[in-house]
Amino acid sequence: MPELRKDPIIGRWVIIATERAKRPDQFSSSAQGGPPENACPFCEGSESHTPHEIYAVRKAGAAANTPGWDLRVVPSIAPFLGIEGDLGRSGKGLYDMMNGIGAHEIIIETNQHIANMADLSEEQIALVLACSNDRIVDLEKDKRFKYVLVFKNYGWVAGAGRVKHSRSQLIATPVNPKRVKEELAGARQYYEYHERCVFCDMIRQEMAFKERVILDIDGFVAVTPFAARFPFEVWILPKKHSCDFTSLEPSQRLDLGRIIKKVLAKLKKGLNDPPYNYILHTAPFRREKMGYWKSIDHDYHWHIEIMPRLTRMAGFEWGTGFYICPLPPEHAAKFLREVEV
Amino acid sequence: MPELRKDPIIGRWVIIATERAKRPDQFSSSAQGGPPENACPFCEGSESHTPHEIYAVRKAGAAANTPGWDLRVVPSIAPFLGIEGDLGRSGKGLYDMMNGIGAHEIIIETNQHIANMADLSEEQIALVLACSNDRIVDLEKDKRFKYVLVFKNYGWVAGAGRVKHSRSQLIATPVNPKRVKEELAGARQYYEYHERCVFCDMIRQEMAFKERVILDIDGFVAVTPFAARFPFEVWILPKKHSCDFTSLEPSQRLDLGRIIKKVLAKLKKGLNDPPYNYILHTAPFRREKMGYWKSIDHDYHWHIEIMPRLTRMAGFEWGTGFYICPLPPEHAAKFLREVEV
Repeated sequence: MPELRKDPIIGRWVIIATERAKRPDQFSSSAQGGPPENACPFCEGSESHTPHEIYAVRKAGAAANTPGWDLRVVPSIAPFLGIEGDLGRSGKGLYDMMNGIGAHEIIIETNQHIANMADLSEEQIALVLACSNDRIVDLEKDKRFKYVLVFKNYGWVAGAGRVKHSRSQLIATPVNPKRVKEELAGARQYYEYHERCVFCDMIRQEMAFKERVILDIDGFVAVTPFAARFPFEVWILPKKHSCDFTSLEPSQRLDLGRIIKKVLAKLKKGLNDPPYNYILHTAPFRREKMGYWKSIDHDYHWHIEIMPRLTRMAGFEWGTGFYICPLPPEHAAKFLREVEV
Repeated sequence: MPELRKDPIIGRWVIIATERAKRPDQFSSSAQGGPPENACPFCEGSESHTPHEIYAVRKAGAAANTPGWDLRVVPSIAPFLGIEGDLGRSGKGLYDMMNGIGAHEIIIETNQHIANMADLSEEQIALVLACSNDRIVDLEKDKRFKYVLVFKNYGWVAGAGRVKHSRSQLIATPVNPKRVKEELAGARQYYEYHERCVFCDMIRQEMAFKERVILDIDGFVAVTPFAARFPFEVWILPKKHSCDFTSLEPSQRLDLGRIIKKVLAKLKKGLNDPPYNYILHTAPFRREKMGYWKSIDHDYHWHIEIMPRLTRMAGFEWGTGFYICPLPPEHAAKFLREVEV
């Protein structure tokens, strides 16, 4: 069982690996750039190389864990958090810890050996969004979990492994993540003063000035954020307010798939297939017993953040929490608007 | 002039480069690993290749900006923040910004072409500490600045440039950094409840249990933190409480230099010369007009954090603020205790 430990100074939780821990002598510094690719366990026909599937979109009659599928979800073979057990909160002197309970699933986004989500069809991306929705709804039933993060690591620098097959990962956590709590706290504070959603105000201002808008299609807008942390950072936001990704109408998934594909294709073509991280931020689970009501949703606005990994984090960033963005986001937006896809 | 921009949701400041900004087409993804090294501008005899020195430890009679020195400080040739001008706070709709005012200096730690601080003598490291002290004291006189961070980037992955000559960087900022504010807020909250310093309590607990202690010499202790973010993360703390690095007695600098050298040498030998970041965390400037008094120091405890860069940051970390440490810090401490240097 991994262990969750709380930093006693700033209150940040850290996951300490135990079973999947490497030995100290395995960390010896070596060349970056990534190992060669092995045979792919995620292609159609290799189902026996993955754990049993949790979820799949299959052709009529195809049996589980056999060929004949468009998308599969399997548990991670190297989970950051373990699914069995209870939270086991405990302390030792001034330190707080709990068991590393959670879920860690892999969404295999295609049966073809395609590396970049940019090269999937809009329809296939819509299928990934439908699957993400269904898995979040299912995991909400497990009362041990407070949050689910859906994310992608594309390219070695962005944290991907040696298998280059397009996939999302999904991690359910027993505590609300610090980044999400900060966004919630900021959005609540803004709402208390203005009685408006800060994300909705941002979208209105961006659409009025247009200098940071990359795409505005159907119900969604893609922008570079005003205080971008990374060059070519892109946020995709629904224009219609909602705190909860799972409230998205199924009929809108194809529109969202279209704007995601266009943004990723612009990054791939304009920046020579850069590594990137992709995260879906939705509100924490709002169960009545947690003191929330589903009907209160003014204090968050779900969105997708895409972060190309073209710069390095250095001592100044670690020491201060400041980011240095070497490209004004207005320039990045203009560049990406002009890349034809 | 670079621009400081505030994220309107979580309140994080970001530095947006303007003059030193790259063009969008310069970011095209390329191999990691770092470019080859050019001729070194930091070696003795190359003084004409740096801006004029701000500070130096020179042999008697040696003129400024000529050979005959043990240590020099020069302004960065590519500063993140500009020294001239005022803060010029302004807003545009819901966004806040200010001019990127600050100081960015390079401490050239030796006149020899030595890359890693691990290979400097204890006496030379003590000279670097004395210089850091003097530069912080000098920059405090500039009332535009609230904080000074001293840090090191060693190795390409850790953000170093192509010149491999041991140096520290020093950046003065016009706002208190988020990371430091979080540490201050946490330490204040702990103090309010317990009426003890959280760092002092940590040191007492670590010295009692010893499982995370690497070195305990003279007035300093080197430990792996309980909630380590990175494998082999090491903190060096003074046992005597003080919020302010510049309160360190000059006579203790050699002891601090000794423990720094030993920790860095253990990392170099045990982990095959890994890339690392090194940061000095001291309390923000406490001028009376800012509502602080120099005499209040119970809410912070200065320290050094050393972070070997052996893991990659991925979508889960960016999306949640959680870190995943693939090695229990107790194992890292045991390994480093056993490396003979």
